[in-house]
Amino acid sequence: MGWLHDGHRALMGRARAENATTVVSIFVNPRQFGDPADLARYPRNEAQDVEICEAEGVDVVFAPPVEEVYLPGFDTIVAVGSIARPLEGAARPGHFDGVATVVAVLFNLVGADRAYFGQKDAQQVAVIRRMAIDLATPTEVIACPTIREPDGLAMSSRNVHLTPGERAAAPVLRQALLAAREAWLGGERSGDVLRDRMRAQLAEEPLANVEYVSVADAATLAELDAVDGPALLSLAVRFGSTRLIDNEPLG
Amino acid sequence: MGWLHDGHRALMGRARAENATTVVSIFVNPRQFGDPADLARYPRNEAQDVEICEAEGVDVVFAPPVEEVYLPGFDTIVAVGSIARPLEGAARPGHFDGVATVVAVLFNLVGADRAYFGQKDAQQVAVIRRMAIDLATPTEVIACPTIREPDGLAMSSRNVHLTPGERAAAPVLRQALLAAREAWLGGERSGDVLRDRMRAQLAEEPLANVEYVSVADAATLAELDAVDGPALLSLAVRFGSTRLIDNEPLG
Repeated sequence: MGWLHDGHRALMGRARAENATTVVSIFVNPRQFGDPADLARYPRNEAQDVEICEAEGVDVVFAPPVEEVYLPGFDTIVAVGSIARPLEGAARPGHFDGVATVVAVLFNLVGADRAYFGQKDAQQVAVIRRMAIDLATPTEVIACPTIREPDGLAMSSRNVHLTPGERAAAPVLRQALLAAREAWLGGERSGDVLRDRMRAQLAEEPLANVEYVSVADAATLAELDAVDGPALLSLAVRFGSTRLIDNEPLG
Repeated sequence: MGWLHDGHRALMGRARAENATTVVSIFVNPRQFGDPADLARYPRNEAQDVEICEAEGVDVVFAPPVEEVYLPGFDTIVAVGSIARPLEGAARPGHFDGVATVVAVLFNLVGADRAYFGQKDAQQVAVIRRMAIDLATPTEVIACPTIREPDGLAMSSRNVHLTPGERAAAPVLRQALLAAREAWLGGERSGDVLRDRMRAQLAEEPLANVEYVSVADAATLAELDAVDGPALLSLAVRFGSTRLIDNEPLG
């Protein structure tokens, strides 16, 4: 969606290393925003994005206008089921239908062998991978590690909206995830205790308004009573009008 | 879906004439049947179908088992909106979601330049074309004329289920369409009058149980009060447990 940062640069670098040609799509997709105000204020700077792509050796920047992605009379939805329902799916109704639909269109328009996505949006990657496997898209979905600021804040185009005070507070997402991870490494297996551990850490930051904390099965994203296999810690937190998410795998 | 007839042969002939390689997919798609009994009794004869394909010079028959089309954990739906809602969409809830989904999968698995569908299933063609345009599939959708028995009955795999008495009665679908078309050619433009004309013709056949008759806008398939542009006459009629459909374009 543009407003490219070091997380995107890492995707470009990996794509370049593994493929003959690298295409970057830049498209702020209106169908994945429930709130028109959120869409309107999503940061954009295409000239700067193109410069970044050039500097990273990208071959093609594909930045179509909305009406070239959604043709007149557009009336198709690609919807993924259970893995799209909890967490971001519950917090943002329709969001993942918009994501799965636009990615299905972009996969057909670009015709890539591989597509690279950041693990920061872990559920998004899971939804897109499910869609790609189910529809047998010729494009393979590849997840890449989250890139972080030195203080641990996950890179996100939305970080630009944070006030200086909120920016200083935002690493608490990472701290909450690490606190729960630490407890898990120490043998804690109760979902409730791990969720409480995240909440306790977030409660120490007055600017943080918690939307959810989650300890979920890594494959299904269903909330866990007990962690007895691969799991995903994740959370969504608001700072003023800016909503941030982050996650950490366990096992 | 197999049980190939002369309508399918015509699709194969057109595909062969326009392309270097012709693939026929044979897949009775469980996701487009609402009624398990209807799925169970859908006619199948793969050996005979393969013989017909060979005789028509088809290069590849693609007849995958269900579990190769729907992989474990399959959980994606491709859904077309307003054009899928009336007529067959109203009579068979979920049917067109099943159709659009399987065709999206088959398009990706086969990777064809063009795909040929029979106009007998006019709404199906419209739904698939909408999906293909919207998702920008590399496969182009081509509609081919309905092929009919000498007495006017549209070729359909379901015709095999008709008893001799029902088979003798079944051309009434075509007769009803032609009666309305005749009225339209004579200047009649009222949707209600044209629908009544079809109903009157069907009422003369005691074995025919009418499910719907329609005079709809050719582009949207919305029912018309007045026919002042391209329209589609269509109907669905049951003979015993066998459901037949047919249609005729106006203008």
